[in-house]
Amino acid sequence: MLNLVVVGSVALDSLETPFGRADDVLGGSAVHFSLAARPFAPVGIVGVVGDDFPRDHVELLRARDIDVSGLSTESGRTFRWSGRYEFDLNTAHTIDTQLNVFADFRPNLPDSYRHARYLFLGNIHPALQLEVLDQVERPTFTALDSMNFWISRRRDDLTAVMRRVDAVLINEGEARQYANTHSLPKAARAILELGPRVVIVKKGEYGSVLFTQDGYFVTPAYPLEDVRDPTGAGDSFAGAFMGYLARHDRVDEATLRRAVVFGGVVASYTCEEFGSRRLVSLTRDEIGERFRAFRRFTHFEDDREGY
Amino acid sequence: MLNLVVVGSVALDSLETPFGRADDVLGGSAVHFSLAARPFAPVGIVGVVGDDFPRDHVELLRARDIDVSGLSTESGRTFRWSGRYEFDLNTAHTIDTQLNVFADFRPNLPDSYRHARYLFLGNIHPALQLEVLDQVERPTFTALDSMNFWISRRRDDLTAVMRRVDAVLINEGEARQYANTHSLPKAARAILELGPRVVIVKKGEYGSVLFTQDGYFVTPAYPLEDVRDPTGAGDSFAGAFMGYLARHDRVDEATLRRAVVFGGVVASYTCEEFGSRRLVSLTRDEIGERFRAFRRFTHFEDDREGY
Repeated sequence: MLNLVVVGSVALDSLETPFGRADDVLGGSAVHFSLAARPFAPVGIVGVVGDDFPRDHVELLRARDIDVSGLSTESGRTFRWSGRYEFDLNTAHTIDTQLNVFADFRPNLPDSYRHARYLFLGNIHPALQLEVLDQVERPTFTALDSMNFWISRRRDDLTAVMRRVDAVLINEGEARQYANTHSLPKAARAILELGPRVVIVKKGEYGSVLFTQDGYFVTPAYPLEDVRDPTGAGDSFAGAFMGYLARHDRVDEATLRRAVVFGGVVASYTCEEFGSRRLVSLTRDEIGERFRAFRRFTHFEDDREGY
Repeated sequence: MLNLVVVGSVALDSLETPFGRADDVLGGSAVHFSLAARPFAPVGIVGVVGDDFPRDHVELLRARDIDVSGLSTESGRTFRWSGRYEFDLNTAHTIDTQLNVFADFRPNLPDSYRHARYLFLGNIHPALQLEVLDQVERPTFTALDSMNFWISRRRDDLTAVMRRVDAVLINEGEARQYANTHSLPKAARAILELGPRVVIVKKGEYGSVLFTQDGYFVTPAYPLEDVRDPTGAGDSFAGAFMGYLARHDRVDEATLRRAVVFGGVVASYTCEEFGSRRLVSLTRDEIGERFRAFRRFTHFEDDREGY
């Protein structure tokens, strides 16, 4: 049964980093999310593509147990983004954004999606995120992502969605921007006070922090020898995080913590190749292997000798 | 018995951050190091001050069981540094550096220091660090810190010291600069290949990574609600790290990992007040409390259900 749904962009990305470039790669938040979630749980996409969207891409998703019945095709061109990363790989510089059919996107959930208990609202206009929330019946756990653009231009709409979801996933810089403070704990608390029970602040190569009403969980990123392209890391973090919760159908503290670690593990794989390429081939065994490695190199024992 | 020695600067710092300012605060690498080390183990300072250095400061150190017999007083003014931090607190902007008596510093270890088994070479000219190494007899564990200035101006000297120490503590940016790569694992490995068995890359508010021949240990920073001034955080990290090793007189992997965590814990306290002010009052109980809290909010359990 479909228990996890994502709404977001489906795109053709052109990417340039100091380590190479790739053109018209399958991308977008809903794609990265669902490819990262599917090793954990069945997932359904809500999104839109143009009539130029390669059928191969749709088949690729379908072949990986991703439900594409919520992916509509409109006449026109698919959403395209091109971006460049400098040497430090932390900041994407947008070269060009062509919204194309995505400009008129109005998400519409197939009936088979409406009972999903886990819902992720990818980075789209907050007003559309609200529309999606209105289309699901009694979800267990809803989460949203957003970006600086909506924080500065549609702050009130975004706040309205935040008030209605269980979790907010947000970049470090965007958390500071939204709450107007340098302190991440203060920024997270400002968002928790709106209603969410979970705030996850993503810090890229520096890991992430899970804030709940009770406290927090801080975890570093999996240290990669070679990062080729960070595009999709945040969305694949979200995909593995939500996928893990949906798989176990639990959102207690211990499960949330492990879900965050799996999020970081899958995001680390994403960065090894351009766009969604690494996610496409990612196996459950590889994920389990890196999870265990991560435990080994973050573990330290209590001090039993006086401290 | 004195088992831990630090050589470095003793300074009067004038500090400005978005949260206030403080003038002529007791500072310098040897001061931050020794104040952070002394809750763990007796420590001796090697350094120099001018005849303007307040007697109160010397008494303050002495009252905290810090051996100041290696602290010489020369006629002239004490080393002064003034710096400013912007809103993000990650980068210090030097406003003024007055080397004064520190310009002619030639470290000379008292006899009582020469059998110390743990030695920390704070950030001074690498040629002087070498001189200090020649003055200790059969140390168990020696470590150095450095900075961008020596990496660009005295690279060969610095490399020569790196070849002779057991551990290198280095900032993220400086590790990248030294090894000419963005990849921290590669940068650390380049340094390990010179001879050290331990490289610690310090990432400020993002924690640190311990690299050894066998692998690594990654740990986030203690998340602070309010950071007032990061001056001395790196040196106090080193002080607690080396103090913990000296206290237990062991340098196995498990002890190194705990030492890194204690380093981060003490550095987090340092950032709560200007300069060395917080370290001066820091108690063993406070350190233990934050160590236990850190364990709580970094711990996650293994997944026993199929992943």
